[in-house]
Amino acid sequence: MKIDIDINLSSNQKYFVHIDEFDVLNIDHKVAIITNETVSKLHLKTVCEKIKAKELHIVTIKDGEEYKNLETIEYVLNELFKYRIDRKSTLIALGGGVVGDMTGFVASIYQRGVKFIQMPTTLLSQVDARVGGKTGINNKFGKNLIGTFYQPSAVYCESEFLKTLPKREFNAGVAEIIKMAVMFDKEFFEWLKNADFNKKEDLKYAIKRCIEIKAQVVMLDEKENGIRAVLNYGHTFGHVIECEAGYGTYLHGEAVSMGIVMANELAKKIGLLTKKEADEIEDLLKKYDLPTRYNLKNIDKFYDAFFLDKKSSNWVITFILPNGIGQSKMVSDAKEDIVKNILKVFG
Amino acid sequence: MKIDIDINLSSNQKYFVHIDEFDVLNIDHKVAIITNETVSKLHLKTVCEKIKAKELHIVTIKDGEEYKNLETIEYVLNELFKYRIDRKSTLIALGGGVVGDMTGFVASIYQRGVKFIQMPTTLLSQVDARVGGKTGINNKFGKNLIGTFYQPSAVYCESEFLKTLPKREFNAGVAEIIKMAVMFDKEFFEWLKNADFNKKEDLKYAIKRCIEIKAQVVMLDEKENGIRAVLNYGHTFGHVIECEAGYGTYLHGEAVSMGIVMANELAKKIGLLTKKEADEIEDLLKKYDLPTRYNLKNIDKFYDAFFLDKKSSNWVITFILPNGIGQSKMVSDAKEDIVKNILKVFG
Repeated sequence: MKIDIDINLSSNQKYFVHIDEFDVLNIDHKVAIITNETVSKLHLKTVCEKIKAKELHIVTIKDGEEYKNLETIEYVLNELFKYRIDRKSTLIALGGGVVGDMTGFVASIYQRGVKFIQMPTTLLSQVDARVGGKTGINNKFGKNLIGTFYQPSAVYCESEFLKTLPKREFNAGVAEIIKMAVMFDKEFFEWLKNADFNKKEDLKYAIKRCIEIKAQVVMLDEKENGIRAVLNYGHTFGHVIECEAGYGTYLHGEAVSMGIVMANELAKKIGLLTKKEADEIEDLLKKYDLPTRYNLKNIDKFYDAFFLDKKSSNWVITFILPNGIGQSKMVSDAKEDIVKNILKVFG
Repeated sequence: MKIDIDINLSSNQKYFVHIDEFDVLNIDHKVAIITNETVSKLHLKTVCEKIKAKELHIVTIKDGEEYKNLETIEYVLNELFKYRIDRKSTLIALGGGVVGDMTGFVASIYQRGVKFIQMPTTLLSQVDARVGGKTGINNKFGKNLIGTFYQPSAVYCESEFLKTLPKREFNAGVAEIIKMAVMFDKEFFEWLKNADFNKKEDLKYAIKRCIEIKAQVVMLDEKENGIRAVLNYGHTFGHVIECEAGYGTYLHGEAVSMGIVMANELAKKIGLLTKKEADEIEDLLKKYDLPTRYNLKNIDKFYDAFFLDKKSSNWVITFILPNGIGQSKMVSDAKEDIVKNILKVFG
């Protein structure tokens, strides 16, 4: 199964997302695989056996969102320089979103840009498939605040990789699938209710559908001025949750799951979503054992934290809300007291 | 005087270089000026008076190539986050090449890209005018090894800024002007022999001519696969000189001046340049009190250092040499012993 990601991006670069198609990869130049300690033990051997390159180097980073920072970037860059990786070399990101975001960032700044291939090993990063080319790292001010737009030259999504994924992490990936369905595709949402991800075909279909939707969205709006922001459903709240709870407490998908429920509360209040619809969404999240209720610590601090999120500019917060299931609405005029009242539900 | 830089870059972005046209600048959003301690004392007040923005913040970094590193980038990023600079804000680089390279890099990675305007305060950075959009920082492996391609939204070259420039730094900028003439324009080279940079009109003409040539070159080849590499005349040697001597020992233009003479020695040896032509070039460099003879410490180490320079890949060094005055040739098959014999001249 192969999806052609041919978005009219400013870089004019196109690439393929291959689903279960990773075979022998011949690369005529040096290759450096960037991976983490956990993934390395599970999949590195298999991957290395399939790569034929002039030289093959491995850079292993620590596993976890808390290492997605400038310090790790510097470590990776130094390793690449030590191996004399040059402009014609290719980096391979073998891992989940953290490895992918960081490798993409490194690829975009190493000698002003080298090629990179992504081999996502988590469900979350497979449904993302790097469509849109966002790379980034966190800092003390928030998530993904430093980064670039940079396209991979190919993405290989292997369902084989997902077999070793802890249940909790797999479910976190499902949150992202549910997000896509609620925002863009009611039919897909209905299909999801009865889907069985133990069946390989169901899983592959869901991954494919998410990538297709995301590609369409990004094509319509590369630089996030419009519809692309809709992909941040659940994220405006989710990012603050991750930050308040401390990175590493929740998986990204778990924070998004709780963020979705918060956003839905606001959507209900504004009259965009019925209680029945909100319950259907929450039930689907619960089906995958996802947390849906976050107990926030301090309403005022939580509210203030929105303004450091990069989706808001000039002190206006834009909330991405469902407008029924399968459609979305961006709301920028939600009053402070209304939002804070919603937050009280979770206080 | 205004030059339209409309290169068909991958970013499809065009901008103007304004020569002596900086008047009141109205910016509807937040602005952060990135400058250094030296420039700040000389020009910050004048510049601030001319900028009308919603908020105006200043980030001051230390003066010198030795601070052009990831640590300074992190400091600048943190300052911007503290001031809540957002995606619609504009950064202004007020300073020379170091401030420009770093501000451009920061602008390209801050929240995945914000606008930036450059106000170059050195001759070197004015003749460069950021044409081609290279940004970058150094690390222990070499110069400009980390960076991006990122275009400014405008460049303001003010001859007023150059009046406070130390003679030595001014002359370092002239090295770059001479480089352009030798590589691309014999007529310009002849004109330079009699030019008087105390005359404002001569100076403005030389700046304009360099920017025009560079824009033409970059248009022909954005990603340095071909002719753009010619801009590195003197730099292959120059970078190694800067590195061996220790950053800060020589100004960039001084290292380029010595690098030009080294390259010319090789060009003479290969039969691309006559002794008369090489002498003419060296005489012009000397007219501006530029160093032309570098006494290198260790020939083998100097030679090995070429391979970490990003212009070389897969253990082939490409030398950019003059082919007579006004034309160039890229030489990738220079034998090790020939190059080392040339280096002995400087040993």
